[in-house]
Amino acid sequence: MEKFMSDALQNGHAANAQNEVPVGCVFVYRDEIIAYGANLVNKTKNATRHAEFICIDQVLDYCKQHNLQYTDVFREISVIVTVEPCIMCAAALNQLQVKEIIFGCVNDRFGGTTVLNVFHLLNSNVKLQGDICADQAMDLLKEFYKGENPSAPIPKKRKC
Amino acid sequence: MEKFMSDALQNGHAANAQNEVPVGCVFVYRDEIIAYGANLVNKTKNATRHAEFICIDQVLDYCKQHNLQYTDVFREISVIVTVEPCIMCAAALNQLQVKEIIFGCVNDRFGGTTVLNVFHLLNSNVKLQGDICADQAMDLLKEFYKGENPSAPIPKKRKC
Repeated sequence: MEKFMSDALQNGHAANAQNEVPVGCVFVYRDEIIAYGANLVNKTKNATRHAEFICIDQVLDYCKQHNLQYTDVFREISVIVTVEPCIMCAAALNQLQVKEIIFGCVNDRFGGTTVLNVFHLLNSNVKLQGDICADQAMDLLKEFYKGENPSAPIPKKRKC
Repeated sequence: MEKFMSDALQNGHAANAQNEVPVGCVFVYRDEIIAYGANLVNKTKNATRHAEFICIDQVLDYCKQHNLQYTDVFREISVIVTVEPCIMCAAALNQLQVKEIIFGCVNDRFGGTTVLNVFHLLNSNVKLQGDICADQAMDLLKEFYKGENPSAPIPKKRKC
C-alpha cells in the first residue's frame, strides 16, 4: 500500500509544481492503478475539481473503454489519497461505494472523518485507514501554504 | 422565489420522464436563471452527477463566456432546488460560497442539513431556507419510487 501512496505523493508534488493545493491520489482496481489525480481547482477554475473527482472521472472512462459496469468496478476500488478526503469527496466516494480509502495525513478543517464521520453517519461499509506516510503528505501541504494563506487548512501532524 | 421553484420542479418532472431520480434545480444570478439542472446519474452512469453539479458546471461555462470570476459570481448565486442537497452537494455549494440555498422538501436519509448540518459544521455563511413547495417536490419523489426501490430516500412530509 505504501508503494501506491508513493505514487499518490508524486501526484501531490506535481500539483505543487503547478501551484495547486498539493493533494494527490490514485485509484487501484485489482492491484492496478487505473486513475491518477491531483487537485485541479486553480487550473480548471472549479472549486469542486479535487483529486478524487479527477480520478472518479477517469474510472468512469475506464469502465466505458472496457465495457464494465461502473457500480461493480467502484466496489473493488481502493482510493489512496495523500490527505483525508473533505466532506464533499467523502460523501461522493461513499455514494460510489468504493471498497476502501487509505489516506495520509488528516484534514482537521474540512475532513470527512475528522470534522465529522460521513461514513458512520451514512452507515457506510467503506473501510478507512489513515496515517500512511502522513508526514510526507503534511510536509507537502506546509510547503505550499508557507506564508501564503494562513487561513488554509494544515492537517494535524501524525507519525508516518 | 416560488416562481423559480416552479422552474426547478419542471426540471424535476423532466428528470422523472427520463427515469432519473426527480430532483431539479436552477441557479439564479442577479434575478436571472443562468443554470438549469436535473439529476443525470443514470444517463451519465455517474453517481455524482446530481442536479446541483450539473448547474455548477453551467455556471462555470457562463463565467467563461462572460469573462467573470467564478468566485465573485457564486457569491451572488441563489440555489433553488426541489430537494434538500445531499451531504456531497451541500459541501460543494459551501465550498463555492453560494449566497443561499432554497430547497423544497427535506432529505432525511442523505441530506446535508437534516442528516447533519454541513453548513454549521464548516462555519458557513450560506443562508438556508426549506419548505418551499415541499409537497410538490415530495410527490414527485414518491411517484418515482412507488414500488420501485423501497430502500431509496423518501423525504419527510412538510406542508408547502
